[in-house]
Amino acid sequence: MAKLGFIGLGIMGKPMASHLLNASHTVCVYDLLSEPVKELALKGAVACGNSKEVAQKSEVIFIMVPDTPDVEAVLFGEDGVAESVRADSIVVDMSSISPIHTKEFAKKLDALGVKMLDAPVSGGQLGAEKATLSIMVGGQPEVFEQIKPYFEIMGKNIVHIGDNNGDGQICKVANQIVVALTIEAVSEALLFASKAGADPGKVREALLGGFAQSRILDLHGERMLERRFNPGFRIRHQQKDLNLALQSARTLGLSLPGTAVAQELFNAVAAQDGSDLDHSALVQALETLANHKVSE
Amino acid sequence: MAKLGFIGLGIMGKPMASHLLNASHTVCVYDLLSEPVKELALKGAVACGNSKEVAQKSEVIFIMVPDTPDVEAVLFGEDGVAESVRADSIVVDMSSISPIHTKEFAKKLDALGVKMLDAPVSGGQLGAEKATLSIMVGGQPEVFEQIKPYFEIMGKNIVHIGDNNGDGQICKVANQIVVALTIEAVSEALLFASKAGADPGKVREALLGGFAQSRILDLHGERMLERRFNPGFRIRHQQKDLNLALQSARTLGLSLPGTAVAQELFNAVAAQDGSDLDHSALVQALETLANHKVSE
Repeated sequence: MAKLGFIGLGIMGKPMASHLLNASHTVCVYDLLSEPVKELALKGAVACGNSKEVAQKSEVIFIMVPDTPDVEAVLFGEDGVAESVRADSIVVDMSSISPIHTKEFAKKLDALGVKMLDAPVSGGQLGAEKATLSIMVGGQPEVFEQIKPYFEIMGKNIVHIGDNNGDGQICKVANQIVVALTIEAVSEALLFASKAGADPGKVREALLGGFAQSRILDLHGERMLERRFNPGFRIRHQQKDLNLALQSARTLGLSLPGTAVAQELFNAVAAQDGSDLDHSALVQALETLANHKVSE
Repeated sequence: MAKLGFIGLGIMGKPMASHLLNASHTVCVYDLLSEPVKELALKGAVACGNSKEVAQKSEVIFIMVPDTPDVEAVLFGEDGVAESVRADSIVVDMSSISPIHTKEFAKKLDALGVKMLDAPVSGGQLGAEKATLSIMVGGQPEVFEQIKPYFEIMGKNIVHIGDNNGDGQICKVANQIVVALTIEAVSEALLFASKAGADPGKVREALLGGFAQSRILDLHGERMLERRFNPGFRIRHQQKDLNLALQSARTLGLSLPGTAVAQELFNAVAAQDGSDLDHSALVQALETLANHKVSE
């Protein structure tokens, strides 16, 4: 059995690494904070002092950190993976980061004889804890097949999007574009209904029976009506993901006007101390403009 | 059994009136064009020369015409319903028109002792022909109960949205806001995926398994990938409905930035001779800007 490494033990990474441990794998772990490293060491993980040490001791290295610069630092920074990684190792980046930078990282690793998969997830903290994450994977099919058993320990809906590095990240960005714009769709529709004097709950019910049906209308629509804006998925993370979409679009030569508007509405909610609310709180920006709440 | 009237025998109204005829009701019919009147007369309908004559001969008067001014003309114009309608008649407006004007029309009819329901539909030509329309109804519950048996002849998913006139129209507008913005969500996401180099078909499949799931992603997403832009639901009708949304929003004191952007994208497709394409062709506006097609 391959020796595993896991770098990044936050609210996502810690439960994910725990699932691998619980499946009797050897897991070498590292995080910038020492607390979660100690915690997992008590459960049998091999505590490491930096990413370089993880790479030294592992054949498959999972990464789960917040953003593109964090992945870059883990891989190519001081005491990073590249300083000690062995040829024929596999790096599996499960963070949600730039698809364009992912391609560059894969190229640099390839020059060291190291294979890479990008495998961002959706499903949030709950999905990580319950091992029900959706995992979107880019990279060579034979590498995917090799890593699939580990994915199956951490998630449920595991899709190999394509053979190119970055294909998983592209899919994740596309996912976040759809999620953000559908939240805006539901926000504008329910606020319209409420301000016009109809019962937005009845409207939601009716719309779920037709072409307007979506999981967002079902779940986030209910949140808006019940004012349940505790996260869930935080607006600060949605902003990060839409930033990836808009920056990549600019690089690729692509105009995303709806995504840009949605981002501005998230910015408006954040400006009113809403960064840590659930992304369904986008509706609050529109409510402020209309001087009216969906639930009034 | 009540004598029925049906005014407006277009691609929606003609099959709807036919279902009432086939259920052995007496139906007095009128349209600005004489062809469909003659056609239904051959099937047993009572041909009328104007809306006034329909109102004279009927107790329940259904209306299915294109837009707000058309409903106004049918009800209050020369040779209109108001000139001959009997007290205790019921007017059922199944057109998709302004919720705000609907309230005014109901008030004026009420002054004549006439009850009104607004009952716009979704499901399009196919839904009308197969009697599977969704019907969203506003108006007094006892009037709704009286008319419900007729709705059940023409549709399937029949929801009483609220007791106020206009509640059905409000729900229809909300429906069209969600549909338009979800089409834009899917368009931006699939175009992003394709331009970034991933397989948009694989991305659509993966997204259908998570929070991004919607009927639009399923059906309209497939249309975009297969370039099937024959209608379906025409862009010119989507433009009309979003115009209702944006005009009503202005009157109500409400800002709908996403809906406004979607309308501009439909306008762009229309500007390139796309008015009669399916509304999923919104993606073409973004494709033109990106100089890239989803399916490339």
